[in-house]
Amino acid sequence: MDKIILASGSPRRRQLLEQVGIPFEVVVSDVDETIDGPPDYQVRALAIRKAKAVRDMVGGDTIILAADTLVFVDGVVLGKPSCREDAFNMLKTLSGRSHTVYTGAALLRGGDINAFVDSTKVYFRNLTDTEIWAYIDTGEPMDKAGAYGVQDRGALLVDKVEGDYFTVVGLPVAKVASTLRDMGIEVWV
Amino acid sequence: MDKIILASGSPRRRQLLEQVGIPFEVVVSDVDETIDGPPDYQVRALAIRKAKAVRDMVGGDTIILAADTLVFVDGVVLGKPSCREDAFNMLKTLSGRSHTVYTGAALLRGGDINAFVDSTKVYFRNLTDTEIWAYIDTGEPMDKAGAYGVQDRGALLVDKVEGDYFTVVGLPVAKVASTLRDMGIEVWV
Repeated sequence: MDKIILASGSPRRRQLLEQVGIPFEVVVSDVDETIDGPPDYQVRALAIRKAKAVRDMVGGDTIILAADTLVFVDGVVLGKPSCREDAFNMLKTLSGRSHTVYTGAALLRGGDINAFVDSTKVYFRNLTDTEIWAYIDTGEPMDKAGAYGVQDRGALLVDKVEGDYFTVVGLPVAKVASTLRDMGIEVWV
Repeated sequence: MDKIILASGSPRRRQLLEQVGIPFEVVVSDVDETIDGPPDYQVRALAIRKAKAVRDMVGGDTIILAADTLVFVDGVVLGKPSCREDAFNMLKTLSGRSHTVYTGAALLRGGDINAFVDSTKVYFRNLTDTEIWAYIDTGEPMDKAGAYGVQDRGALLVDKVEGDYFTVVGLPVAKVASTLRDMGIEVWV
């Protein structure tokens, strides 16, 4: 297949496309990520917004893939923490219970838009304050929605998941591949 | 913490310990992997057998970690495929339904044995015969229990999981870390 354009600077999304053998190059735009509404609406709309911004930059008919991920708990959206204390409060909130991770993905080809949302339930084990600070000291939480990265040391925080694990990482690769197939692109399996 | 010994040649288990920052070195023994009994018994007993074999080689009080993983479906255990046709039959069996992955882990320190079993339910999407052969052509299935690797291209086969994703990869790292803590070893978080 031809290369697609990944409209995301996330090393995690890049790594997932590499893992499953979908060829791509990265083009990142600067979009306003402020948005209101329910979590599934937010991730879908932001994914489309990011993909459109890159389409406006590059033009042409190359397929553009963008995604957005957020953590949702007690009716509140957790984005990236603004400081160490913010990260602490988020992880304290997530400790010993479940929350939901939403990832929206958009695949654009010219004016053709294919977007979907996937959600996965994640169960955290009980964390002590000392553990939470030790995790924050690794520096890992600061650039991640909900202040953890399940594909890194954050794996040690999680008891179990219900749904697509890769949605928690930030890109439901199986559904992305299905959508590409629906768009007439041959993906290896 | 001091290095532990990983009694496994699996690059996937090695990568998981690296991911969560548990220091280790690899020592592999040659054990008889023939065993009977229910799947949870098999993976636990084989993990202990592998760990003991390495303990007998290296001696001392260094902690030794071993693990064993198998795929269980319709009351049958799927190990590593013996040939392409075997891989095809396994993947055909797993297509469009759920199966259970069992991983047993054993942590030994001298005569002290700590072992546990974890299981995760995995749901495959519907696969066409063409897709299955294409996946076999990648060469990925041949050295893997159940003929797939969820941490590689096999990610595209899976709809969702219920349980610890890392149990499917081959090492429930959060539970390994908890067990190390129970043994008095400080693990970062």
